[in-house]
Amino acid sequence: MSKLLIVGTVAFDAIETPFGKTEKILGGAATYIGLAASQFNVESGIVSIVGGDFPKGYLEMLNSKNIDTTGIEIVKNGKTFFWRGKYHNDLNTRDTLTTELNVLADFKPVVPKKFQNPDFLMLGNLHPSVQMSVIKQISKRPKLVVLDTMNFWMDNTWDELIEVIKKIDVITINDEEARQLSGEYSLVRAAHKIHKMGPEYVIIKKGEHGALLFNKKNVFFAPALPLEDVFDPTGAGDTFAGGFIGYLASTRDISFENMKRAIIYGSNLASFSVEKFGTRQMEDLTKKEVQDRLQDFKQLTQFEIELH
Amino acid sequence: MSKLLIVGTVAFDAIETPFGKTEKILGGAATYIGLAASQFNVESGIVSIVGGDFPKGYLEMLNSKNIDTTGIEIVKNGKTFFWRGKYHNDLNTRDTLTTELNVLADFKPVVPKKFQNPDFLMLGNLHPSVQMSVIKQISKRPKLVVLDTMNFWMDNTWDELIEVIKKIDVITINDEEARQLSGEYSLVRAAHKIHKMGPEYVIIKKGEHGALLFNKKNVFFAPALPLEDVFDPTGAGDTFAGGFIGYLASTRDISFENMKRAIIYGSNLASFSVEKFGTRQMEDLTKKEVQDRLQDFKQLTQFEIELH
Repeated sequence: MSKLLIVGTVAFDAIETPFGKTEKILGGAATYIGLAASQFNVESGIVSIVGGDFPKGYLEMLNSKNIDTTGIEIVKNGKTFFWRGKYHNDLNTRDTLTTELNVLADFKPVVPKKFQNPDFLMLGNLHPSVQMSVIKQISKRPKLVVLDTMNFWMDNTWDELIEVIKKIDVITINDEEARQLSGEYSLVRAAHKIHKMGPEYVIIKKGEHGALLFNKKNVFFAPALPLEDVFDPTGAGDTFAGGFIGYLASTRDISFENMKRAIIYGSNLASFSVEKFGTRQMEDLTKKEVQDRLQDFKQLTQFEIELH
Repeated sequence: MSKLLIVGTVAFDAIETPFGKTEKILGGAATYIGLAASQFNVESGIVSIVGGDFPKGYLEMLNSKNIDTTGIEIVKNGKTFFWRGKYHNDLNTRDTLTTELNVLADFKPVVPKKFQNPDFLMLGNLHPSVQMSVIKQISKRPKLVVLDTMNFWMDNTWDELIEVIKKIDVITINDEEARQLSGEYSLVRAAHKIHKMGPEYVIIKKGEHGALLFNKKNVFFAPALPLEDVFDPTGAGDTFAGGFIGYLASTRDISFENMKRAIIYGSNLASFSVEKFGTRQMEDLTKKEVQDRLQDFKQLTQFEIELH
């Protein structure tokens, strides 16, 4: 079974959408990535940090999904990273109301021995110096390294981010971030430029408009599933990334053809994630539900045309 | 061979994009629709109106594509409808600088005898009373009636538009217009509501983000082809509609499966249309080029996943 190491936040979120609001619930990039990857046959472990206020029950829930949490440092007298946000009516934009870094401010990741030689490495959205520190603790080059990042790090830690980007295989960013990183408006041109910065594969996430996968020769597109209602978009991008790397890790096949399947799985899982608040839907999701929805993705995208 | 009747504007456009500008060139919804449909084996005719200033050469060009122009009324002492617009840097938004209705202001469409019994009817974006007048001149219900419209008619001629929508099979509108017409934000809910207004098929155009085809049971998605450069988006929606109905008319098959192919062809032709100013690319486009690009659409969207 492939070993998948995930580094990223494990956090509290408080979310308000037009459909309701929550107080502090389980959140964080590594949480969503781990839950999505747990849909596949992988041995995954999370490297992160939480405070003494983090409920043991959350860790047990992750363990019950076969996610190793020994790499989640618990700072007894510290507080867990907390984000509070409010989505606008269109659910495409949101305001951050509170960001309390807490224990994350001094996070020095320590990769447990068991995961120092992972087959797959997922660097969730975090300070690039933390991502780099994890890369340096890995003894043998993994089969695939996937990086997620965001505009905040482009604005504030450009040089460090560029160094990390040189060392990875796949980058996942949204369309605006691809434009910022490359200085190109056309996403095709943006992907070409980003290839030259290091990553052989570029995934551009367009939210409700789907996602594009580029290598130097090919492009593949996975739409988002049109839904009657999107309830809470929090974690959709992380769920997508977790589904992508989880599928690749379970199949141990990093061909472009298999990456196509992987981003369909990522889109599939993301479509569930947005249907309930927080991680609720992902905690209860069955393999049967995922398979049934795969049929919806096929109907949505597959056609037969004879070429002349 | 199927007869396809197209009603819509035949016009002059003056276009400015970040890549250059044109003076008055050939434009108009019916022009783009006709040129796109001419890629298929159909007998098409346009009903429209132009002024004495309209070059004979343009009509001859259309005739050379096997498009009947006897339904284009020429008002000798009148001037052709003229639109001048300027696209913003992102090419997704534009300002209208000039709209001169000219002969279009008093347009009373007259369907030539030869086209009073068409197999397929395409009602291009126009005043709903003009669209209704054409419907009333048709002696036998066509196999399929497709309507294109826009927010302007929703704002100004709501009641007349609703009456036309009751009589058609397929409506093509963009995402914002679907929301305006239905009062629903979710495009899935919007399509459901629009079905109840009449059309069995709803096509929601999302520009660079592709297009969705709904019937009451199914949904299909065709992406736009990611391009290095979009040069001029003018007429892309009309080209899409013309490709859609042209393909259906040539195959005489209005099953949902065939409509999938039709919107892929529509997207395919639209991807050519935006590569040059105005109708240039569509005038010179060969069947071979279209077939080659179909392969790109397949690679972009088709995947193999085994369901368990």
